[in-house]
Order: sequence, then C-alpha cells, then structure tokens
Amino acid sequence: MTKFKGVIPPVVTPLNADFTVDYPSYTRVLEHLIEGGCHGVFVLGSTSEVIFHDDKTRREIIEHSAKVVNGRVPLIVGVIDPTTDRVIHHADVAKRAGADAVVATAPFYTVTSQAEILDHFRFIRDAVDVPLVAYDIPVCVHVKLQRQTTVTLAREGTIIGLKDSSGDDGNFRYALLDLADQPDVFLMTGSEIVVDNALLMGAHGVVPGIANVDPHGYVRLWDAAQRGDWVAARKEQERLCRLFEIVWVAQGRVSGGASGIGGFKTAMKSLGIIDNAVMPRPRAALDEAETARINEILRATGLLRG
Amino acid sequence: MTKFKGVIPPVVTPLNADFTVDYPSYTRVLEHLIEGGCHGVFVLGSTSEVIFHDDKTRREIIEHSAKVVNGRVPLIVGVIDPTTDRVIHHADVAKRAGADAVVATAPFYTVTSQAEILDHFRFIRDAVDVPLVAYDIPVCVHVKLQRQTTVTLAREGTIIGLKDSSGDDGNFRYALLDLADQPDVFLMTGSEIVVDNALLMGAHGVVPGIANVDPHGYVRLWDAAQRGDWVAARKEQERLCRLFEIVWVAQGRVSGGASGIGGFKTAMKSLGIIDNAVMPRPRAALDEAETARINEILRATGLLRG
Amino acid sequence: MTKFKGVIPPVVTPLNADFTVDYPSYTRVLEHLIEGGCHGVFVLGSTSEVIFHDDKTRREIIEHSAKVVNGRVPLIVGVIDPTTDRVIHHADVAKRAGADAVVATAPFYTVTSQAEILDHFRFIRDAVDVPLVAYDIPVCVHVKLQRQTTVTLAREGTIIGLKDSSGDDGNFRYALLDLADQPDVFLMTGSEIVVDNALLMGAHGVVPGIANVDPHGYVRLWDAAQRGDWVAARKEQERLCRLFEIVWVAQGRVSGGASGIGGFKTAMKSLGIIDNAVMPRPRAALDEAETARINEILRATGLLRG
Amino acid sequence: MTKFKGVIPPVVTPLNADFTVDYPSYTRVLEHLIEGGCHGVFVLGSTSEVIFHDDKTRREIIEHSAKVVNGRVPLIVGVIDPTTDRVIHHADVAKRAGADAVVATAPFYTVTSQAEILDHFRFIRDAVDVPLVAYDIPVCVHVKLQRQTTVTLAREGTIIGLKDSSGDDGNFRYALLDLADQPDVFLMTGSEIVVDNALLMGAHGVVPGIANVDPHGYVRLWDAAQRGDWVAARKEQERLCRLFEIVWVAQGRVSGGASGIGGFKTAMKSLGIIDNAVMPRPRAALDEAETARINEILRATGLLRG
Repeated sequence: MTKFKGVIPPVVTPLNADFTVDYPSYTRVLEHLIEGGCHGVFVLGSTSEVIFHDDKTRREIIEHSAKVVNGRVPLIVGVIDPTTDRVIHHADVAKRAGADAVVATAPFYTVTSQAEILDHFRFIRDAVDVPLVAYDIPVCVHVKLQRQTTVTLAREGTIIGLKDSSGDDGNFRYALLDLADQPDVFLMTGSEIVVDNALLMGAHGVVPGIANVDPHGYVRLWDAAQRGDWVAARKEQERLCRLFEIVWVAQGRVSGGASGIGGFKTAMKSLGIIDNAVMPRPRAALDEAETARINEILRATGLLRG
Repeated sequence: MTKFKGVIPPVVTPLNADFTVDYPSYTRVLEHLIEGGCHGVFVLGSTSEVIFHDDKTRREIIEHSAKVVNGRVPLIVGVIDPTTDRVIHHADVAKRAGADAVVATAPFYTVTSQAEILDHFRFIRDAVDVPLVAYDIPVCVHVKLQRQTTVTLAREGTIIGLKDSSGDDGNFRYALLDLADQPDVFLMTGSEIVVDNALLMGAHGVVPGIANVDPHGYVRLWDAAQRGDWVAARKEQERLCRLFEIVWVAQGRVSGGASGIGGFKTAMKSLGIIDNAVMPRPRAALDEAETARINEILRATGLLRG
Repeated sequence: MTKFKGVIPPVVTPLNADFTVDYPSYTRVLEHLIEGGCHGVFVLGSTSEVIFHDDKTRREIIEHSAKVVNGRVPLIVGVIDPTTDRVIHHADVAKRAGADAVVATAPFYTVTSQAEILDHFRFIRDAVDVPLVAYDIPVCVHVKLQRQTTVTLAREGTIIGLKDSSGDDGNFRYALLDLADQPDVFLMTGSEIVVDNALLMGAHGVVPGIANVDPHGYVRLWDAAQRGDWVAARKEQERLCRLFEIVWVAQGRVSGGASGIGGFKTAMKSLGIIDNAVMPRPRAALDEAETARINEILRATGLLRG
Repeated sequence: MTKFKGVIPPVVTPLNADFTVDYPSYTRVLEHLIEGGCHGVFVLGSTSEVIFHDDKTRREIIEHSAKVVNGRVPLIVGVIDPTTDRVIHHADVAKRAGADAVVATAPFYTVTSQAEILDHFRFIRDAVDVPLVAYDIPVCVHVKLQRQTTVTLAREGTIIGLKDSSGDDGNFRYALLDLADQPDVFLMTGSEIVVDNALLMGAHGVVPGIANVDPHGYVRLWDAAQRGDWVAARKEQERLCRLFEIVWVAQGRVSGGASGIGGFKTAMKSLGIIDNAVMPRPRAALDEAETARINEILRATGLLRG
C-alpha cells in the first residue's frame, strides 16, 4: 500500500444556479488538478461542501469522479455524516462507486469520547472492506483525534492513514514519529499554508484546498521538497500564502466557511475553470467588490493576466 | 395557534439488540407519556437519538408515532441534519407523515453566521408549509441562536416558537420579554432541572428528557405553577433534580451523551417501560454496577419499590 | 454565622480623570447602596474593576469602605489575583483593614485542575483567619468551580459560601440542594437577570452589579420573595431586566467588560451618584450617543425624570 | 537593533522548600544556558512561573539575573500581570533592574477587544522607554493577538517583536511575511517541538522551555538551520521531541501546567542543575514514579548516563 502520497487536493464542487452539481465544470476541475500534476484527488470533503449533498447526489459525484479520473490517480472519497451507521452506508456506496479509499471524521452533533471514536472507526472498518482514512477536523466536529487515538487505530490496522486539518502541527509531528516504523501508514496534512513544514517533518501527503486554484504551485512545492530544496519549497509556499488570502476577502460579511470556499470558487470562475461561483444554501456567494479584490490577488500571484 | 403548551417530553427511542427500533417498547413509551398527562410529545429530538437514524427509520418513527398518538396530543417532530436542504427534506417527510410542527437546529458541521442562520430557517419555512420551531442547542451545533435571531424569526412569522436547550436562561428570559406581545409564539425550555424557574419567567412549555422516566412529576410541577403554587413547584422540581442524577452515573466511563440517555433507558427498563437499554453505536450501554446505582436513585425518589 | 444574606451589590469604583479613585463619589455610592436598603456590600470584585488596582489602592479602598460602612452592613472584600500566595497577601490586608469576609476566585493565567483549586482555597483559609467565600467566575478565570469542589470546600469548613457568577443556574441549584443541611453556608448568585429564580431555588444572597444603579429595585425584589409574592418578584425583575440593557449599549464599539461597567458608571453619573464615568486603561468610556441611549433607558425604567 | 536573535530560553525558577527562590540553583541554570550557547535568556515568563511571584521577588530575580548574565547575552524580562498600569509598573522596575527588553501579554481576567489590546501595548510603551515585545499566549490570557494587531504594533514602532506561544504557526508565518520589510522587528516562536519549521519560515528566535534541560540541542538545531542543513535540523528536533515527552509524564494526576514545568524541574534536578524540584502552591511536585519515568526519558535521549 504505497499508492497514496503527494498533493491530493480536496475537490471543489461547482454548482448550477439551481444548486445542482455543474458536472461539465466539475469535470474541468478534475482535469485541471490531474493535468496540474496532482497525485490524487479527495472528493466529498469539507471543501467539496459534502455536508450539503444528499445521498443521491453524493453517489453521482463519486461515480462521475471515478469515470473522469479513470484510474489515472487514486480517488479518495469523504464519507462524512454524524454517526457510525450513516457513515458505514456512505462507505459502502463509495466503495461500490469506485473509491480507492474513504475518509471519515469522528462523530458529530453528539458529544463523543476518545473510546467511542476508536469504536466508531472500528465499526466502519469492520462493516466495509475499503481502506479507511481518519479525518481530524475539530473546527467542524468539535473534538480532536488525540495522538493516542490515531496511533492506536493505525497500529491495529483500522485506518491506513490520517488527514490532519486540526492545525495542531506538533501533534501531527508526534503521529509521524510514533508511526515511523509503519511503512504503510499514510499521514497527510490539511495545513495548506505550512506545507513546506509538514514535508520537512516527513508528511506523506498534503491536501490543500487552494490547489483547486493553483495545483501547479503545490506540485512545484512537493517536488522541491522531494529533492531537498527547502529554500525553493519555502519560496513557493510563501507565494501560495499570498494567494491563500482570497479566503478572507469576504470574511465579516459572510461566515468563514462561505468566505473560504466562496473565495476558491470565485477565483476558479475568474480563471475559467468553472462557470459559476454559486454557493449552497444558506451560504451567500461573493459580491462584485469581493470578486474584484480576488482578481487583484490572482494577478499579484501571477495566475491572472492583465 | 394555542395548541402547543405544557409538558412536551423528547421521546426516548428504544432499540432492539440489532439496533432496529423496538416498536412495542416505543408504543409503551408514548402511552406512558400521554397517560402520564403530558401535553404533547417531541419525537426525533436529541434525546430520541435522531442523529443516529437513517431516512427510512426516521419516517417509520414519525408514522408509528402519529398512529399511536392519534391526535390525542400534538406531535412535534425533529428534522435535524447538518444543512438547509437536507432539513427541508426531513420537514417535508415529517409533514406528510403527520407532524403538527417540526423542530430544526442551526446548521452544523459547517461554521455558520447569524445571518446564515436567519436564512436557513427562512428557506425551510418557505419550502415546507408546516409550523416551524427553532431548536437552540449549542452543545450539539456549537453556535448559539442569539436573542435577536430568535426574535426576528418569531416576529416575521418564520418560526412559531423556540426550544431552548442552551442553558442560557437569562437569554431565554429576554426572548420571553421581547415577544410578550406575540400571543401565538411558543417558547419552551429544555433546562429540565430549573423548570420551576422557567415557568415563573412565563415559559409556555417545557421539554424534559427525564420525563420519559417520570412524566407525572413534571405534570405535577406544571400544574402547581399554573395555580401559582411556587413552593409546591419548587419541591417537585427538587425531587426531580434528585432523579436527574441518573444521567451522571456512567459519566467518565462513557461520554456524557451515552451516560445521559443511557441513564434514561436503563431507568425505563427497570421500571418496565421498555424491554432493552440498548444504545446506538458507538455508544456503550450502562453496565451492571451503574444499573444498580440507577435503581437506588429510582427507589430514593419513589419510583421503584423494594 | 448568619449575618450574610440578602442584596449585596458589587460596588462600582468611580475614578477621577487621572485614574485615581474618586473617593467623594465612592462614598456616595456606598451611601446610596446602604440607604437603598442593601444588606451588605461587596467591594473589590470584578464590577469594582479590582484587577486594575495596585496593592496600595486596594488597601485604601478597603479602609475607606470600612470607615464609611462603619458596621452598618457586612463588608465583603474581593482578594482577586492570579495565584495562591498573592491572594493570601490580599486576604491578610483585607482582614486587617476591616473586611468581614473575603472573596477569592480560582487561580488564573495558569491552567488549573479541580484538585489544585481545592488546595488553593485550603491554603488561603489556613493562612488567614477570615471567613472565605469562593467566587465562581469562569468568564474571567476560564475554569468552573465544579459542584463537588464547592460542596467539598463548604462541608469541610474551608469556605463559608459561594458567589456564583457562572451563569450555570442548574449547577447552583445542586449546590443549594447538596448543602441544604449546612445552615451556616451562604450561597449567593451573580445572575442578576434571574434573581427571582435564584431566590425561588433558595439562594441566600444576590450580587447584582446593576444594583449600583437601582438598589431599591433589588431590595423590593428580595422583599417580595421573602414574603412569597413571586408574581411581584417577577414583575420587579422584569423591570430590572429592561434596565440591565444598558450594559449592551456600547457593545461592539468597546469590549463587553468596558460596555457593561461603562454602562453602570454612565448611568450613575446621569443619576448624580458619581461625578465621572472614567474607565481604567485600556478601557474606553462611553461616548455621547451611548450616554443618550442610556438616559433613554433610565427614563423608560422610571429612574430618570424629564 | 539586531542584538536579539537565536535560542532564548524561558528560564526556570528553582525554589527552596519554603517557596523562596533558590538563588544558587538559579545561578547554575543561567550559567548552564549561557555556557550551552544560548543567545539570550528570557526570565519571568510563564515557564519561570512569573505569575506566582510577588513584586519584591520579581525585582530580586531581575537584579540577580542581570548580575549573573552581566551583559554576556541579552536579558529579556517578562512583565506579566492582568492590566495595563500594573504591567507599566513591572516594566519600569525591569528597566531599572537591567532588562534589555520587556515582554508583555494582552490583559487577562478582563475580557478584552483587539482595539483595547492595541491601546494596552501603546500605553506601556509610552510610559516606559524600554524595548517592548508582545507575548501571544492564548492558553493563559484567553485571547489571541490577531495578525493585524501584531503587524500594526510592529509597524508603528510600539513593539520590537513578538513571542508567539499560540501554536498557530500559520498566523506566525503571516506575521513574518507581513513584516519582512521591517529589518528591526524580531519574531520568535514558543512552539518548541516544531522549531525547525519556524526557522525554515524565517523566525528570528526561538524560546523553548525544554532548553532548560538541554540547551545544547537547541543550539545545534539553530546552527544547523543557519547553515541550511534542514535534514540535521529535523533530526535534532526529533530527538528533542522525544525529550519533550517529559512534560506529559504527570499529566492527569496534576494539571498540565504543573506537569510541564514540574517535568522540567524534575529533569533538571536529575541532571544536577538544580537542587530541588519544588513547585509553587497549589501546584504539586512530581512523585517518585514520575521521576523514574523522566529519568528513563533522559537516558533514552542521551542526557543521563547509566
């Protein structure tokens, strides 16, 4: 099991004005990422606004993704819902629809202990024979996957890896150290503005949302790190940090989630990758002034001409 | 619209060993509550472990509830899921299956602003023509319905009422004061250990989980308050507070959610109301020692003989 | 030990333009409270902005208070600082300067366990022979005095009582129930907008900041509760809730702390109780528009004429 | 102003059994750090347990430190207390006692806005003419110094730098980027388990508590980073991460603060640097089993023989 590694963006889900998935645009997003050199794609994650989609749409998105990706890179699929059995259902659908691995969070809405989280992942893995990745995202589920939880699940073979979006890079480092003797374990970070750091620590993969806008930047950063050129890695990361400022352009007027993914979609529309920057209800789309500010950032970081 | 008022317990959902709903036990729970004098029932709330049930089970629970209740008291139905359109789907199903009103929380998993929460409830109400109650439960959704949000939604007619499980009784009082001129608005509290207080403040309804164990106590408390006998109301509430200690018996060994609802189920089994105290995965059921301790509390509060 | 009970406001500390204490105004505040019928005064609490004062000023405030109060009502003194030995120093000073009891919080700045909190209060009580009250104020110290902590300290005689400003009225009720067999224990609430509730639950005292503005209202509320007239108690509390809205007038422009105590001071200046509404650095004072809004509220609640 | 840079440990304050400062041990700690190659010392920080010391002891500690350090490296002094004017007093004392710079946090105990935090630092700087460093430590003061707050204070010359102990390394990176054109600004991190990362991002200094136990390790790490040998830097950091595990040995039995600094003191005693591992009240010292476990870690990381 060494097929997972590298830059694996969480794929933005473009919408039509009626909130259905805009599949022609979605296809272009996937092609943009694969042609940009990404080593995998992660669909139906938080950046994909998975939580807004009903069961039928989720299955269609997976099937469409599998058809477009067509084995060129691994297809990793989020199976995110509040409780164990509902996640098991999604994992089963994902496996049948062509997922190479599935990604589950801790339970949410309910308040959960670490012991319950351990069992949650074990029940999922027992129920569906598909590689399982744990997703640590306290900002959404309001509980942290503690170091010992992750390490136990990985050592016993329940999970093949971790997507760490907790922002706790010290804890991520300890997971890397604790599991250094486990060659098949796959630890990736969602801390997209310190990817050079994560790679210096030995991270196996990175999951940057902003790679939807600029996959080439993260691939260059990955390649620089692979050849040990940390100065180049840092320089590329710093340019990407300036690009990442698009996520705050609408903050204050709309919620952080709407501002961040709205920023991605607005930039992707400006770059001609998708047709609409529609946001799912009740999130508001960015307005004209915010779009203009995003275009300025795209120009300043070399992505938009004129 | 004055049909909603009084003691409206969130109905516990008994399970079989295979995690399916134990409908014979469930019927007994509903009869226990209605015969106990409750003025309504709230099914598919947090205490009902709604978030563990899939769409098909939710519909069956509503339909079964409607058949058993048969118009004797109002049937209020939780339509709880992370995002607007998924809630709209549940509200539509609930309406068709016989709900007198539906109860929705703020969005969760996503991080949401108060402006988005306002729109969330408006979209739900616009989509489904059924009375809508806002459910303020920050411990689960990690955002508070601010006073102005509730008041705006009530004044414009988007919601008919509020179920306040935030524990912020000062804020609840301001909602009561701000909406005192709205005779149709229905404000109920989930703060089940200070129900005498809530009624003194003028609350229209109370939603005590522990009423699954002892409905008569809360009905006595309600009646005492209605006749202005606050000393009796307090005395009854204090007995119920001693009963409420069952929710902490297993705390530490299992999570707070598992300990609380597990405590309810264990007590209900001891009292012969339900057949099993099975908990949905990954929650663990209470063990023998914990059950013995719960039985002691039932005896001390006069609910169990011997 | 039954001398502590009733309405015991936390005394606002008026300042001169140079940030020294305005003692003539301060004297008038104390007289206003005592003449208004208050049963005690709590100086150097959070509302007194104790944390802004240096050691010398604290001692002067206590000595001045003792002289003005002159035994007419109990003088309770806050001894608030981050760590045990610094609190012991303040307690010793307070005792010598005439305090009838001292009030200490859990340690802050440091992260503390409940076991350390227990020892913290024991060390204080062992070091200084003065009645000690525990102050539960998580919004300032970021740790809650758990029910068991309070009950243990009261039962063993370390503390004579509690000032509960946690807003967790359910927990406060359990403290009342758990300590109902301890006639000398004195439990008071800082939840000033639900004082009728606290008294219905059996609270022995109340510590309302807004009583600096309107002591008579809280005394009427207390008296109504003592004679069991809960309808009158509620009605008085509701008027006080409308008055309490002054604490939010400046919120948004300044921090919550500055808005709240700034609101008190501004109202007290409008009512002629103090000469200046100066706030300690870096808190900003309320501006003209905010003052006008506060005066409107004072008129609407019957405190200001014209 | 380029004299501040490099490894600047927060100096542990050893105590006698009677809780007074053990100055002979303290002198050895300072010598251990300076002889170990550290580029500065930071006394009276959180690791120094500053918040436990009274004014007199603080002054003595600064004076003693100045005498021992004697200009060999910069002496940076924490001036930590809840409110502006109390901090100003400490800053004035520190300046007179020989501090090269002072370090202040945001206000605490009070709830503070970013605007008030800006003014807080401005008032300090206006009052005392000594270089001022902002200390971002939300775990203690419960508010974050936002990126714009730090950048504004640095650009206007109020602060000469930042000690970032927030754990938010992404935000720290933005501070580095935003202030890259300010050659005199000095940005240091307290994230002691990812120091290689911070240096790769361009941090000017690091403030590792565990350097009290092993200064040579951090100096080697710093030197590796200076010559661009990131592989060696990472390897040294990983060894130090294994050493850092001493901070969790007593966790659970005692609070996190007691476990962490207690771990440092216990290790330093085992290594013969200090005579006692006494903790200030109400913190408990580590017990024998915990000490044995710490000695194992010291052996495993090459610091203790036998």
